[in-house]
Amino acid sequence: MTAPTYDILGIGNAIVDVVARADDQFLSRHDMHKGAMILVDEAAAEAIYAAMPPGLEASGGSAGNTCAVAAALGSRVAYIGKVADDQLGRVFRHDIQAIGVHFPSAPLLGGAPTARCLILVTPDGQRTMNTFLGACVHLDESDIDTALVASAAVTYLEGYLFDPPAAQAAFRKAAAAAHAAGRQVALSLSDAFCVDRHRSAFRDLVAGHVDILFANETEITSLYEENTFEAAAEAARRDVAIAALTRSEAGSVILRGSETVEVAPKPTQVIDTTGAGDAYAAGFLHGLTAGKPLPVCGRLGSIAAAEVISHYGARPETDLKQLIAGVG
Amino acid sequence: MTAPTYDILGIGNAIVDVVARADDQFLSRHDMHKGAMILVDEAAAEAIYAAMPPGLEASGGSAGNTCAVAAALGSRVAYIGKVADDQLGRVFRHDIQAIGVHFPSAPLLGGAPTARCLILVTPDGQRTMNTFLGACVHLDESDIDTALVASAAVTYLEGYLFDPPAAQAAFRKAAAAAHAAGRQVALSLSDAFCVDRHRSAFRDLVAGHVDILFANETEITSLYEENTFEAAAEAARRDVAIAALTRSEAGSVILRGSETVEVAPKPTQVIDTTGAGDAYAAGFLHGLTAGKPLPVCGRLGSIAAAEVISHYGARPETDLKQLIAGVG
Repeated sequence: MTAPTYDILGIGNAIVDVVARADDQFLSRHDMHKGAMILVDEAAAEAIYAAMPPGLEASGGSAGNTCAVAAALGSRVAYIGKVADDQLGRVFRHDIQAIGVHFPSAPLLGGAPTARCLILVTPDGQRTMNTFLGACVHLDESDIDTALVASAAVTYLEGYLFDPPAAQAAFRKAAAAAHAAGRQVALSLSDAFCVDRHRSAFRDLVAGHVDILFANETEITSLYEENTFEAAAEAARRDVAIAALTRSEAGSVILRGSETVEVAPKPTQVIDTTGAGDAYAAGFLHGLTAGKPLPVCGRLGSIAAAEVISHYGARPETDLKQLIAGVG
Repeated sequence: MTAPTYDILGIGNAIVDVVARADDQFLSRHDMHKGAMILVDEAAAEAIYAAMPPGLEASGGSAGNTCAVAAALGSRVAYIGKVADDQLGRVFRHDIQAIGVHFPSAPLLGGAPTARCLILVTPDGQRTMNTFLGACVHLDESDIDTALVASAAVTYLEGYLFDPPAAQAAFRKAAAAAHAAGRQVALSLSDAFCVDRHRSAFRDLVAGHVDILFANETEITSLYEENTFEAAAEAARRDVAIAALTRSEAGSVILRGSETVEVAPKPTQVIDTTGAGDAYAAGFLHGLTAGKPLPVCGRLGSIAAAEVISHYGARPETDLKQLIAGVG
């Protein structure tokens, strides 16, 4: 086995976020479930956009965010995802490349526009997401360069990939290629509703093909249909080599074999929780691929998450390398 | 004279900002003059963008920002500006309409793309701007609806309009229509380099057609080619009915006839000074058109400016009506 060229290869839905402040009344008027991500078609996206307050546009996508944060931390990162050949597609490409991520995916020509996620941030910092997948639904097996997968220590997949049907095949192809090359596969469950939509596929995948699992409390209890976090965590411990489970203001718990590590959160003022889990995964994998002990990996995750929740948008706005200087 | 339908009609370059953090070395490597706005063509814009760190996209444009802030404060506002029929144009239209501004201008079809301003924000909070005017250069006299101008108490023009040649004619047509209807004309000088490029035209305009002048210290001293702020301010006092002159951390000075009002700035943590002057003008005009005394107008300007410099981007992110509750 040769040394990896990349620490992390992310595969995900390539999305530009449109972030706006909204109150709880806006969410109820539009039948939105606070904290969740729902898929909308282009017409619904236009209708929601028309009703939304002014927005800030920023590159997003769960795995895209993780890749951006990991690169900002100093990891060697590549990303696979589908944008269109339009202005928002160029914004996505610029941003992920500018932060140092290798992004070889060709844009979709003449089809659907680049995906958008309309994110309403309520005063409590929670985000409610409405995603128009656009060009993302054209990500398929042909986009998975198995040589690129083989060159990455960890292939990181976002659970949201289970929504566009063709991406599931891409997902499985990438996982198989990673293991064939002796690499590891990481999965983020993304969203409790996403887990609900695809529970049995997720259960099969986690048990059979995932080495490192990221989930928050509602996602992991939904995956295993357990009533308590503790019971779900024990189920995850049996299924995967490493489970990194986040619990918002209660920090995170990392399970590896019989080992259990509890990690305190980094206190910060919460403005917008968009990307918190993505950033945690980035910090964790940055530490793990550098051979750091689990408590350090968790601490790196907490620091990265604290940065992105302290401002609007899911990508870092400050110098992350400086923030983690001296950790571990 | 009938009562105005709008308090403020802004006319300006309709621009989407791309805001990124950069260090002083980035500015010198790209021969940028810190704090200034320069015009670039599409090729140069692409080259700068390619070299820039990841960005946040947000609607901008000097008068556009002023209109957005004034509407957020509760003023009745309309805006005239030229976007293209593209994704960034739709972002601009959405944002200004979503904040409550009437925006009747038709988009440019099949021509240049929507204008972009690539803004590099250095750690000292200063912004350095590179503007590709795109569709803005097609704003001309035909875009000025004189009935709309006549319906606004104040027609507010940004100095940057002197850069696209056809806009100068639009500028003069709007000023003439406002005065013919017994309304007032306000002008923001925008930028000391912009004043340098068009000094004699600005001098004629200010002396002959402007009632309310907004400028910062370097702009007003450049306009009158004076060495001191005091001398330039006295020249402005002779030329216009009201001059509202901002002095960064020294606050602002308002001159009306023999009256001189000094206004303290509102202390805040400076993250990005983009839009500080635009927001000050909005607060000031919001107060003035509501019949408030000058010290209150100045204080409203300071509060609005403090809000926009406390985060990335030139449009407000918090509830401005709440911020000014109880002022005056």
